Amino acid sequence: MPRLIESVPNISEGRRPEVVEAAVAAVRATGARVLDVQSDADHNRSVLSLAGDEAQLAAALLALFEVATARIDLRQHKGEHPRLGAVDVVPFIPIEGATMADCVALARGVGQQVAERFGVPVFLYEEAGSAPHRRNLEDIRRGEFEGLAEKMKGAQWQPDFGPTRPHPSAGASVIGARMPLIAYNVNLGTSDVEVAKRIAKAIRHSSGGFRFVKAMGIMLEARQVAQVSINMTDFKKTPLFRVFETVRAEAARYGVNVIGSEIVGLVPAEALIDAADHFLRLEKFDPTQVLERRLREQG
Amino acid sequence: MPRLIESVPNISEGRRPEVVEAAVAAVRATGARVLDVQSDADHNRSVLSLAGDEAQLAAALLALFEVATARIDLRQHKGEHPRLGAVDVVPFIPIEGATMADCVALARGVGQQVAERFGVPVFLYEEAGSAPHRRNLEDIRRGEFEGLAEKMKGAQWQPDFGPTRPHPSAGASVIGARMPLIAYNVNLGTSDVEVAKRIAKAIRHSSGGFRFVKAMGIMLEARQVAQVSINMTDFKKTPLFRVFETVRAEAARYGVNVIGSEIVGLVPAEALIDAADHFLRLEKFDPTQVLERRLREQG
Repeated sequence: MPRLIESVPNISEGRRPEVVEAAVAAVRATGARVLDVQSDADHNRSVLSLAGDEAQLAAALLALFEVATARIDLRQHKGEHPRLGAVDVVPFIPIEGATMADCVALARGVGQQVAERFGVPVFLYEEAGSAPHRRNLEDIRRGEFEGLAEKMKGAQWQPDFGPTRPHPSAGASVIGARMPLIAYNVNLGTSDVEVAKRIAKAIRHSSGGFRFVKAMGIMLEARQVAQVSINMTDFKKTPLFRVFETVRAEAARYGVNVIGSEIVGLVPAEALIDAADHFLRLEKFDPTQVLERRLREQG
Repeated sequence: MPRLIESVPNISEGRRPEVVEAAVAAVRATGARVLDVQSDADHNRSVLSLAGDEAQLAAALLALFEVATARIDLRQHKGEHPRLGAVDVVPFIPIEGATMADCVALARGVGQQVAERFGVPVFLYEEAGSAPHRRNLEDIRRGEFEGLAEKMKGAQWQPDFGPTRPHPSAGASVIGARMPLIAYNVNLGTSDVEVAKRIAKAIRHSSGGFRFVKAMGIMLEARQVAQVSINMTDFKKTPLFRVFETVRAEAARYGVNVIGSEIVGLVPAEALIDAADHFLRLEKFDPTQVLERRLREQG
């Protein structure tokens, strides 16, 4: 089976389409697949979704850094989204035939090349992070580009690769490995947002819930429906069906039904197949029984 | 997205491995993918699973007919499984990016070429069948090779392509298009096989149940578990989750629980994703949100 890794680089440019297009063109020229490009003018930021094997993605990321460091100047950059650098953050995500360890190794390899070729300091994060305080993206990015030179004077914030001070215009980059995120919302048969907030609190890691769940309760004003809005950060260890079943049980405690759920954006097939396996009570099911997977493995 | 069709040709040879191997080698030489080969000596029959686009499968089937008509002689053939010809039956099955109409057209094209090149009469069946009495494989095959010359004297059994009498050694072939089959069993928390038989009767088409379900109740002696053994002949129109839920409801009427279910062999991802969609009560879910599918479409 071909090794398949996804990468979702975020660049600090969402207002000049010509710069984003030049970056995407440079990536495409390497042969990597570009699945999606989303630009946000308020955030002044663009998010690319790329897929390929290690060699394809390494080439694609180096091409992206080349355009971004030449054409994005953080000294001129304003936007609502926090950022440290021209190529702000680069996660690698194992999809099929590749492990988390492969993605950590790829993050280290790309980080080292980026530092050498472009003089940009690189911080490794999440699964690739070199210390506990350097795993969380928000911690690394706190202070943003404007506070970076001062932050990097501390022993805690020496980069993993590259110079010990920020690149003058391109700042620094955060490169790492993580599981795919699933954005998952569960809609409740009530307009009482307090119910959604209490359920979110029950299921999220930060207040005692599941290890790989972030959640909050919000109100869908147009529908007058309370929603538990969830980020699943590791669907293999905290599966979708278990979160759904727990929301359903917690809602029942308030006499409230689950009226539906939503997956926002992309979802790995495995997360849905695991749910079918659970609800159909499958015995001895093996993912290689999935026809499309068999075809890919033999393709 | 590349067009992907599966074909599962059955040949009347399951005792001479060298003949089966020669047939498989000829198929592989065309570039078609061989997913699986199963030979059964009692049946004296082998089942190949192939995948590709129309051109690849047409070339593969012609190569298979060339070997099978040269090396299999139905006048010498004995086996438990009913059969009409050397290449007995060839279904084409739409998997991805191809419709049933594409598969019907492919069946007609391959049927015509087989008749012209090898002088083998061809009967189209299932979705490709040219009349209501010629859709069901069992009806076409009734009388087998030994009764075929007599059967083909009738106006009802003129072939769709080729000569009006059987090929002397290779008989006739049945070629058509159908949905993928899913072999699906539901295990009950009882050793009373009568419960499984009553549930099978409730869900199967032939006794008033779902249009695309065949079912029977059997006993798993080793486990002392009664099982509803099901063939799903069109999972898009009669979905897996609905059959599961109906078996569960019928079993509850006898005070019996569903203790598990099993998928035997391959299953299209869509059948499982539809089940996840149902049980998670997804709103506005679109199959193109599945990451692997997005990757294939853009691959």
